[in-house]
Amino acid sequence: MNTIRINLSTKQWKVEALSHDDILLGGRMLTSKLLHEEVPAGCNPLGEENKIVIAAGALAGTGVSSSGRLSIGGKSPLTGGIKESNAGGTFATSMAKEGLRAIILEGKMPNGLYLLKIDGDQCEFIPADEYSGLGNFAAAKRIYDTYGKDYSLITIGQAGEQKLYAAGISITDLYGRPSRLAARGGLGAVMGSKGIKGIIINSRGKKLNPNAANNEFKKARKDFNDIVVNSERIPVLTKYGTASTVMPVNQIGALPTMNFKLGRFEKADAISGEAMYDIIVERGGTGKTSESCMQACLIKCSNVYPDIEGNELCAPIEYESICLLGSNIGIGNLDEIGKLNYMCNDYGLDTIDVGGALGIMAEAGYVSFGDIDGFKNILKGLPGGNLQSKLVGMGTAICGKVLGVERTPAVKNQCMSAYDPRGVKGTGITYATTPMGADHTAGLTVFAPVNHHNRDGQIELSRNMQVTRAAYDSLGLCTFLLGATGANPQALINLLNSLYSLELEVDFLKHLGKKLLLLEIEYNKMAGLSSADQIPEFFLKEKLPPFDLEWDFSQEELESVLKDLL
Amino acid sequence: MNTIRINLSTKQWKVEALSHDDILLGGRMLTSKLLHEEVPAGCNPLGEENKIVIAAGALAGTGVSSSGRLSIGGKSPLTGGIKESNAGGTFATSMAKEGLRAIILEGKMPNGLYLLKIDGDQCEFIPADEYSGLGNFAAAKRIYDTYGKDYSLITIGQAGEQKLYAAGISITDLYGRPSRLAARGGLGAVMGSKGIKGIIINSRGKKLNPNAANNEFKKARKDFNDIVVNSERIPVLTKYGTASTVMPVNQIGALPTMNFKLGRFEKADAISGEAMYDIIVERGGTGKTSESCMQACLIKCSNVYPDIEGNELCAPIEYESICLLGSNIGIGNLDEIGKLNYMCNDYGLDTIDVGGALGIMAEAGYVSFGDIDGFKNILKGLPGGNLQSKLVGMGTAICGKVLGVERTPAVKNQCMSAYDPRGVKGTGITYATTPMGADHTAGLTVFAPVNHHNRDGQIELSRNMQVTRAAYDSLGLCTFLLGATGANPQALINLLNSLYSLELEVDFLKHLGKKLLLLEIEYNKMAGLSSADQIPEFFLKEKLPPFDLEWDFSQEELESVLKDLL
Repeated sequence: MNTIRINLSTKQWKVEALSHDDILLGGRMLTSKLLHEEVPAGCNPLGEENKIVIAAGALAGTGVSSSGRLSIGGKSPLTGGIKESNAGGTFATSMAKEGLRAIILEGKMPNGLYLLKIDGDQCEFIPADEYSGLGNFAAAKRIYDTYGKDYSLITIGQAGEQKLYAAGISITDLYGRPSRLAARGGLGAVMGSKGIKGIIINSRGKKLNPNAANNEFKKARKDFNDIVVNSERIPVLTKYGTASTVMPVNQIGALPTMNFKLGRFEKADAISGEAMYDIIVERGGTGKTSESCMQACLIKCSNVYPDIEGNELCAPIEYESICLLGSNIGIGNLDEIGKLNYMCNDYGLDTIDVGGALGIMAEAGYVSFGDIDGFKNILKGLPGGNLQSKLVGMGTAICGKVLGVERTPAVKNQCMSAYDPRGVKGTGITYATTPMGADHTAGLTVFAPVNHHNRDGQIELSRNMQVTRAAYDSLGLCTFLLGATGANPQALINLLNSLYSLELEVDFLKHLGKKLLLLEIEYNKMAGLSSADQIPEFFLKEKLPPFDLEWDFSQEELESVLKDLL
Repeated sequence: MNTIRINLSTKQWKVEALSHDDILLGGRMLTSKLLHEEVPAGCNPLGEENKIVIAAGALAGTGVSSSGRLSIGGKSPLTGGIKESNAGGTFATSMAKEGLRAIILEGKMPNGLYLLKIDGDQCEFIPADEYSGLGNFAAAKRIYDTYGKDYSLITIGQAGEQKLYAAGISITDLYGRPSRLAARGGLGAVMGSKGIKGIIINSRGKKLNPNAANNEFKKARKDFNDIVVNSERIPVLTKYGTASTVMPVNQIGALPTMNFKLGRFEKADAISGEAMYDIIVERGGTGKTSESCMQACLIKCSNVYPDIEGNELCAPIEYESICLLGSNIGIGNLDEIGKLNYMCNDYGLDTIDVGGALGIMAEAGYVSFGDIDGFKNILKGLPGGNLQSKLVGMGTAICGKVLGVERTPAVKNQCMSAYDPRGVKGTGITYATTPMGADHTAGLTVFAPVNHHNRDGQIELSRNMQVTRAAYDSLGLCTFLLGATGANPQALINLLNSLYSLELEVDFLKHLGKKLLLLEIEYNKMAGLSSADQIPEFFLKEKLPPFDLEWDFSQEELESVLKDLL
């Protein structure tokens, strides 16, 4: 497997083979290791010295279920620290088919906006001024119209071009929709700062690892995929998608509601996975209750949400978006949430940080909670550079600072995800301690069979989840596999051993995760970030209804979470 | 001498005497030492844990020329690091008369807005809801109308109440004008976050150091004041004020013009100290070409700038404001600069960071360079909470981030002062290395008799100036004394020895300055800030006309500046 390193300033590139020692290096481990080695921790995230690292995992393209997550890394303009954001879609698989484990963007285009077209070991710089100001959907359409359908795309929308800190990078799914976002941490702004509108890669490459055709690997793959298909958790995800999480989190009183003021939303029923399922079935048309976002995924947690006439309104609608663009701003209607969600996808924005920022706007009185037209008006000014829209596009924390709002639910400047830390305490600990800023994907604890209100054991739970997720992220594996294969690490090890002729043992995974976290913590320390940021004061002062939940972890406890990992 | 420590959360206070060992502890040394010891470096600057420390110097109130600077310190919301901002006015002298070296504000008022009234060792908490939304001038007038004239005041305007990061704290001058601003670093936002609109202190206290009446001190004071009166530099400041600096800096091509694009302004003549002098003389009325801002000042660099009918338009107009609100945004007219300046004083804003932000607004196309009505319209929306105004009130760096402007002249999020770093290289080094963020007051080199374009010796020059200024700031001495007494440290030492029965030698000053800088650097390190931040990339890429000046100091060189101070 190769990496392609592209210097934008000089328009030169270099293809290098991974050494045998590094043959598993991919995903978040690759992005973070490269940043750690090559990007000065003190650099300006939107300056020449930052890099964008796009990495597939070691199993991409091999038919292993849900192994095609794409990691995108860079120093984050939002957190000021190391950042990896991963998403589904087809790009990682297409990279693997081209024999690529990573694409590394260095420097900046001297001027103008460009598309990068990668075919094998060739790289083409295509002036893209005509794409300037296009949303992801219009940009993807124009690319497909011009170059044909046999490509996977990465693009940024207007938010990335405007270098807004909640700008993500979108990745096309199996149907060519640019709606899988590596959303968090403002990596879209980094891509915008480099003058890159999009990257196009052939989806029909033939350079896959030949071991994938061996019987030993095929057997391991069947075993692994069988575990996925036969798990208990997966059918719920397949049927209701991630939206299945709405009701249980509402039940335990941890659903972010009215800017994290309440833990239950009176209209939760109407925005639940069950409600979404019923609406999609009832409306029919292009609607789908279940869909894969990448090749070979057996979980199929995605969906196509249709409007009342059956036309595609947003695909997919996911749990975090439902809460941050829904309950958190008082919107209890999936059609309206879907419209906001689609706008975010098109402009290339993180729904979490935007939803949090809209909550701040409401808290500050610029719009009322529940005022869907007000929220839509704020968002839709973004392509035109409206200042309110831009501020929302900068994310929750900066919005809160400019508007002087104390109740700003962010850590390391990044908005919390859809689990109130007082109600899902382990995830709160993750927000406070992950090198990524408040981000559930770094260590979500809500699916663990514990009392999420009770502080006992939550530190260990968060730590273990952070380690496990770090390992999965480094292998390009979708986190939803965890509910199935998490308890059977040997199945995963068998895949790696057979594909790469290795002799790993199961403790490899823990070691991988810990090594990664230590490296990220070290980078952040060099960048001046703390390894434990207490969550904002208002969570410590206000009890969360209806269960009067408190946040009660001290700074010392938080500092202990990732202190002695090895 | 005493300190009064006021806990706002509990409305309790405590008066403590300084120990003999700490008898000189004052000014910036006191503010920074206390922050270092008591304010967690990782705390939220607008949260409960931050403190505001207000400190006079050891010579305040004793009739020594220009010894009544007031230092205000806190963790800065703007830079994220330690901050001291000092200004003239009468407050420090009034503190000294009340036997106070420092006022320390801890915690936060639980709710509402308050005035603090300090009389001797008594402290009164006066509900100030009726002051909410008032500018500094209206607030000061209401306070004087209510409590009489025998008070010195500290207040915040609307900017501080809105917790904007360019909000300063204003201090009344000899004529009761709230127009001496401890402007930099957003300390007004910190005061706003604590629910304090203003502090009122009796100006007729009688608790001065009795040694001030001794002959030995009187002799030392006469010697010191004679040096001031007889120096060469001072008469220029007396006649033209700080505005005298416009023409020389324009001459060397380092006057910030059109957002630091040019080093000379075609209308520099019209905004020079000489032009201001002529206008004031010609218009007469309330105009004054020279005025003291504090008791006993023999420099009198202040002024009262009248409008065409002779009515006070702004008092004073100073060099930094002239450049940042003038040449930097293409305004070549002192009347218009004065109006912007007055608005900043009234709203309680740092003219430097606001001028820089207006430059960013122009750079981003929201207004044109030179469009005075456009700039006024942006500013005047501030009391009403207009979003553009708020963004400008957040200062240059945040404005640049939200608007995606690469050409943002800030270090540690703080706007550079009115010396282009490519043209006054020593001051550029100060911007990059002082713990205070880009701030000329931490180590201005422009008055040193060197070639400011030449890099040789600039590191040493910046280092020495930073040390000297740190010492002066710690003693509550106005920096303009340096042009007179800087070369005669013994005169200053004689003052301290005779007033406090000490036996200091002249190296005390250097030791004091170095000790302070090390302490501030250590605090910033704990807060995650670097001790050397390279200046923004665009200064490295663009040559400054008309002399094609470059910035050419490496990161390694910058890190060496304050590395081995002791």
